[in-house]
Amino acid sequence: MKDIGLVLVSGGMDSLVRAAIANKKHDKLAFLHLSYGQKTSAKEKECYDKIADHYKVDPKYRKTVDMSFLSQIGGSSLTDEKLEVTDFEGDSDEIPSSYVPFRNAHIISMAVSWAEVIGAKNIYIGANYEDSPGYPDCRPEYYEAFNKLIKAGTSAGDIEVVTPVLMDKKKDIVNKAKDLKAPLELTWSCYKSEDFACGVCDSCALRLRGFKEASLDDPIQYKS
Amino acid sequence: MKDIGLVLVSGGMDSLVRAAIANKKHDKLAFLHLSYGQKTSAKEKECYDKIADHYKVDPKYRKTVDMSFLSQIGGSSLTDEKLEVTDFEGDSDEIPSSYVPFRNAHIISMAVSWAEVIGAKNIYIGANYEDSPGYPDCRPEYYEAFNKLIKAGTSAGDIEVVTPVLMDKKKDIVNKAKDLKAPLELTWSCYKSEDFACGVCDSCALRLRGFKEASLDDPIQYKS
Repeated sequence: MKDIGLVLVSGGMDSLVRAAIANKKHDKLAFLHLSYGQKTSAKEKECYDKIADHYKVDPKYRKTVDMSFLSQIGGSSLTDEKLEVTDFEGDSDEIPSSYVPFRNAHIISMAVSWAEVIGAKNIYIGANYEDSPGYPDCRPEYYEAFNKLIKAGTSAGDIEVVTPVLMDKKKDIVNKAKDLKAPLELTWSCYKSEDFACGVCDSCALRLRGFKEASLDDPIQYKS
Repeated sequence: MKDIGLVLVSGGMDSLVRAAIANKKHDKLAFLHLSYGQKTSAKEKECYDKIADHYKVDPKYRKTVDMSFLSQIGGSSLTDEKLEVTDFEGDSDEIPSSYVPFRNAHIISMAVSWAEVIGAKNIYIGANYEDSPGYPDCRPEYYEAFNKLIKAGTSAGDIEVVTPVLMDKKKDIVNKAKDLKAPLELTWSCYKSEDFACGVCDSCALRLRGFKEASLDDPIQYKS
């Protein structure tokens, strides 16, 4: 059996870099894309498909799972149309309104279930701490706790979540993408719109700052 | 704010006893029912509704979430129509064919997300070790690991999964239900059918043995 690296690919820059790193380490890649009712679902899926094509991921190892049940739980502006997405307010430690309680557990659990089915041992998660300053489930100690849970809760017990870019700044992500010749033009970060990136939401602001600090131009298009 | 006990209610006997225990400890109950594409979904939902009525659970604290995305992952006879549910083979330590990899993590994560939204601090899980001899995610150490994950991954960090009947035998469950005057006639355990319980699948066999050992008659109907 070939060694499989399972990568959670949202379509954002972090997930692209994760895919590029996994691509160097494993014989085969498996890509998991989760749609959970966020406003930019279609655009993210389009980017995911293009990134999967770029890395020549076998169709049987591509999976998209609809997790829109999360919107039934509420508590987040990403899944509740009635709430406004807030603009970037700097490096606040407050939990932003885009928070879905305990969301990463749903995402990682899905990856672990699929990993056990296909026999993948490493799961690459796209989380990045700078991206999510106030999210408790994006902290390193959270992933350590999750790996202990996987050990306790799976038959083989040898599946591991790896988070190589967890503590990277967006500048580092941009630089790594460049070094790994990863196609940044295929990624999407904006929370607000799908045609041109808004340039002002938390996610756009972090992305733009990353490119600026890396002294590179962002290849995607923004609203002028 | 009233003290809320969140109970995962599948419609089975364990979840009934859990509800009865939570009912004694909390001002208010919240009931979460998860449908994940198992063959007996409709029957279990019907039992859940009746149990919720019995305990007078406020409609705003009743939630049913469709988790049929689990069937997209495969690996289990409960969610894959093509696989046969195996009959009871005694106290085997082997993982039965009804295993969904890492399923409990999806279930508990949903409860934690909702608990954070409604402000519940205790989550009562219906898992029972005897029920699931070979399931790694039904062991006590699994729940300990999960509570550490909740502490690391939620804002308040004070939500806790409690498993008062985890190590009980089915006989104990039956006796507790009797002591707590819990309506056993409203529960369902059979994995195979929805009209009359089959009496031969793992779940029916455990249930029937529990009633026999408790010297009580099972009030539900079986195929003759």
